[in-house]
Amino acid sequence: MTEKPTTLVIGAGLIGTSVAMGLVKVGYPVFIQDIDANAQDVAVTRSQAKKFESGAKIDLVVVATPPSKVSQVIRQAVLDHPHAVVTDVASVKGAVLGGVADLDYPSLSRIVGGHPMAGREVSGATAAQNNLFVDRSWVITRLPQTSEESVNVVKNMIADLGAVPIEREIDEHDLAVALISHTPQVVASVLAGVLNSANKDHIALAGQGLRDTIRLASADAKLWTDILANNATNVSAQVVKVAQDLLRVAKALNENELDAINNMFKLGAQGRELLPGKHGTAANPDSLIVVRVEDKPGELARLFNVAASANVNLEDVRIDHSLGRMTGLVELTVSQSSREILINALTTAEFVVVN
Amino acid sequence: MTEKPTTLVIGAGLIGTSVAMGLVKVGYPVFIQDIDANAQDVAVTRSQAKKFESGAKIDLVVVATPPSKVSQVIRQAVLDHPHAVVTDVASVKGAVLGGVADLDYPSLSRIVGGHPMAGREVSGATAAQNNLFVDRSWVITRLPQTSEESVNVVKNMIADLGAVPIEREIDEHDLAVALISHTPQVVASVLAGVLNSANKDHIALAGQGLRDTIRLASADAKLWTDILANNATNVSAQVVKVAQDLLRVAKALNENELDAINNMFKLGAQGRELLPGKHGTAANPDSLIVVRVEDKPGELARLFNVAASANVNLEDVRIDHSLGRMTGLVELTVSQSSREILINALTTAEFVVVN
Repeated sequence: MTEKPTTLVIGAGLIGTSVAMGLVKVGYPVFIQDIDANAQDVAVTRSQAKKFESGAKIDLVVVATPPSKVSQVIRQAVLDHPHAVVTDVASVKGAVLGGVADLDYPSLSRIVGGHPMAGREVSGATAAQNNLFVDRSWVITRLPQTSEESVNVVKNMIADLGAVPIEREIDEHDLAVALISHTPQVVASVLAGVLNSANKDHIALAGQGLRDTIRLASADAKLWTDILANNATNVSAQVVKVAQDLLRVAKALNENELDAINNMFKLGAQGRELLPGKHGTAANPDSLIVVRVEDKPGELARLFNVAASANVNLEDVRIDHSLGRMTGLVELTVSQSSREILINALTTAEFVVVN
Repeated sequence: MTEKPTTLVIGAGLIGTSVAMGLVKVGYPVFIQDIDANAQDVAVTRSQAKKFESGAKIDLVVVATPPSKVSQVIRQAVLDHPHAVVTDVASVKGAVLGGVADLDYPSLSRIVGGHPMAGREVSGATAAQNNLFVDRSWVITRLPQTSEESVNVVKNMIADLGAVPIEREIDEHDLAVALISHTPQVVASVLAGVLNSANKDHIALAGQGLRDTIRLASADAKLWTDILANNATNVSAQVVKVAQDLLRVAKALNENELDAINNMFKLGAQGRELLPGKHGTAANPDSLIVVRVEDKPGELARLFNVAASANVNLEDVRIDHSLGRMTGLVELTVSQSSREILINALTTAEFVVVN
């Protein structure tokens, strides 16, 4: 397909604006619209997409509004753009697609559910970037009526954004995000919420471990209430499961059943290792490299220069708190296959790898 | 005090070896011993402390063995070194100090409980560093019989290691670590453990959020079972509290009580903000700066050079997964007071700050 579909992005938040930027970059004619004129202006400036003019013939609509509005915006888009494929980016699919299920067959054939796995703690058009979706999974969910042709238009768009399309059944998608996104969000928020009633002298001793575990709790309450409301049954079941496991741990502690406690920690470590190295590449587990960085100015910069020169992709970087003074241990997460390359490069550059 | 006490460190793990290294650096005469001859050799080489010779007169003993051995090692140390102050580094204090409570008054007057808040996911003498405790809180707990003189010897040692001594009642310490360390550890392990029985196609969609939330789950099962066994009542109570809050969320989801869900998320965000900027500096909250780093080689290194030149302490650094190719958004956590300085320096260097 050499000619790119003329695309309308509805919703100028982080995801919508990033989609517009990415598509403009690869030659799509792109319009963007938002009911908030300011957000729309920022998005137009950043993406160089055009402000939508009614009458323009649209081939593809990307709905990037908050989840509770998506069904309604899809319904309108199908009417307004009678030849367009219409997709969305909402993080729950059953409720959203259920909200359009009564449309006629020709309309439904043009609707493709979508969910890019690329959320961030920041939001808004200012934080958008044209490479937000590079190497990310982007889930596609079909309605029974969705045409193969419509799916292909969306798959091409996803590939053009550098992302990896993954098909899932609607129900499977919603179960999956309850497990890997919505329940962790609830757990982090509940664990952080407990701090409100805690003794300040106790909280004063907190360190990096708690910080990591409740990091997600900074999330936007309104957006997340909206998300959970649309996946309530799945999330509720999963949250109950976690709560029951916690109650079992409490019981084992009370009864001094240390084998059960030991087993719980072992299962946790095993579970931790099941995480994909990158979104969707489950077969490629991460490897953690811990490097000692000496107390000299510019050592951290030198470390990253070594990684860059070795062409090694850093999946994650953690710097210990004591690095107030640019010294201490730095944790680099890389793919298993890059581990040896990076360790060699670091050792050659006289860094000390401690694990 | 110009003359430094001759110190014996018992236990050549991460903490013990780091203590030895730090004390050697500031002029303490230091011996180190471990029942594992290999660990002892590594620690001697790294720290330049001496291997312990019986007969040496010891002023200060630092017990850095696994928690379940600490009481017994303190008892022996009090006998072996009749003039020494004896302290430990165990992360629970009630059980450890309860295990020596039957000693005679003169012995008890020489015992000072201690707990440096500087754990790491790595372990062993190889990962030790002489600055591990710099700017960290180091909790001191007294027995009723502990002498002021003994406390002062330990406080001086803590200060000489660059750490900040904080006094806590034994019970208060154990309640605090149940809240800020042991319960988050259990929650992370339980949440990760659930993945073992989950559909692999679901896990394949997991991203950074889950990764952060269950990061602690990689912890050593044996060590942590030992820790929890010594703080079982406190941890059990706290874990039950979290479990009950989770069950309340599940109920609210089932009953579509969205106000309760929204409130839970708001409380979580509030709780998240209560975390201290550094260990013990609760009055100095962190500030998150998100910087867009362009897709050019060496940009990440340049970013850290700018921070180093501006003399800004980075509390934490997060790089997005999509930074496979050294591009995307980098999150820098700095103290509130450094925020403006760093933003100015970054802007001058033509980085784009997006929040």
